[in-house]
Amino acid sequence: MSESSLLRQLLDRQEITAVMAAYTRWADMNQPEQQAAVFIEDCRVKYHLTDWIVGREALTEALVTALARYAKTSHHLSNIEIDFDGPDSATAQSAVIAWHRRYDGSEWTLYGRYVDRWTRTGQGWRLAERELRAAGAVGRDDSQLPPIGRASGALT
Amino acid sequence: MSESSLLRQLLDRQEITAVMAAYTRWADMNQPEQQAAVFIEDCRVKYHLTDWIVGREALTEALVTALARYAKTSHHLSNIEIDFDGPDSATAQSAVIAWHRRYDGSEWTLYGRYVDRWTRTGQGWRLAERELRAAGAVGRDDSQLPPIGRASGALT
Amino acid sequence: MSESSLLRQLLDRQEITAVMAAYTRWADMNQPEQQAAVFIEDCRVKYHLTDWIVGREALTEALVTALARYAKTSHHLSNIEIDFDGPDSATAQSAVIAWHRRYDGSEWTLYGRYVDRWTRTGQGWRLAERELRAAGAVGRDDSQLPPIGRASGALT
Repeated sequence: MSESSLLRQLLDRQEITAVMAAYTRWADMNQPEQQAAVFIEDCRVKYHLTDWIVGREALTEALVTALARYAKTSHHLSNIEIDFDGPDSATAQSAVIAWHRRYDGSEWTLYGRYVDRWTRTGQGWRLAERELRAAGAVGRDDSQLPPIGRASGALT
Repeated sequence: MSESSLLRQLLDRQEITAVMAAYTRWADMNQPEQQAAVFIEDCRVKYHLTDWIVGREALTEALVTALARYAKTSHHLSNIEIDFDGPDSATAQSAVIAWHRRYDGSEWTLYGRYVDRWTRTGQGWRLAERELRAAGAVGRDDSQLPPIGRASGALT
Repeated sequence: MSESSLLRQLLDRQEITAVMAAYTRWADMNQPEQQAAVFIEDCRVKYHLTDWIVGREALTEALVTALARYAKTSHHLSNIEIDFDGPDSATAQSAVIAWHRRYDGSEWTLYGRYVDRWTRTGQGWRLAERELRAAGAVGRDDSQLPPIGRASGALT
């Protein structure tokens, strides 16, 4: 790759990383419309073991409901890995710690991973697909969350 | 922007991010003087619902007292968003998980957000202003911490 | 440094950061061979107060045993600081939150710091040395973990 292309790719990484951060900020501010705006119109999103949520309209509705369950949340991303499969398309993974407090004061914490597909639009990089997988959860039954696929490796 | 300017801005982001990391490292090593050295002389800092701390000298004093309360702390930054409003000035936000253990063994964890103003000095990028806002806290009454401003959105 | 060198260094930072993320991903997927593959053949690693683990073969064996203790783990890196001491060598520090659940359901969380030496190989940047230091731990006696060296600073 030319230096010019390498620079452009660093800028693309920077932009995707910033949009990832915005997603968490809108979640923690309980702004589901703005959170949904980081996705493309015909996105696919999976938060649970159930079906994919298809389209930004359905996603917005799902986010309104999901965020309204909580008095407070705090999402913390790390371990971001972005792989470009063309100038306008990338896959990405990131780890997330998401702390939640319900209105009754009960709390749970997710230790998870987002598995993403990103696409460049006229408005910048947007999420085309996001799948949440759970490494585990504290304060909630994590057998009901999609697993990250850890190899079973207990010594025998 | 020219490629040269774009490269410079990536380097500025990198430097600001590194200074953010140094701030947390000095806190966790209980080195308040070095922690305060990432701020400019006439900085403004707000950690609580009370007044702003004004100036690096007052800040150092406040950090000495604050860090001395703890036997151990661990600060973890993520979701860093930096927006430049000129070649030598930027605003930034970041999320923080800060675990604290007091000398009596009691613990509390902050889930928060730093809202910053950064400025370029002769010694590099430094914090001109930092405001801590709390998404919530575990092990401590978080109604006494400045809130992030989450929209109240319980479904009715 | 020339703009070309500055760009190369940003790309090196990006690559090291990505390998750091891969290390945590392989740990959480319980893939010790792949986790060990981010180290050079004659690496040195220290996770405990005991001796250094020397060489990738011994490391792989140690990781197989260590990961097998857990049903689930989740590692979250932040505060990454990388300092180059030549074109092919760097030191780095990062903060880690590592949540662990054993097969009996018991859990512990590490708040720590990796202190690294990185080297460029024909296959890319690899870890030459990694030392884990603990800021503290919850759910486990952290006096048995190598400390980060926090100054003792209780006010008297």
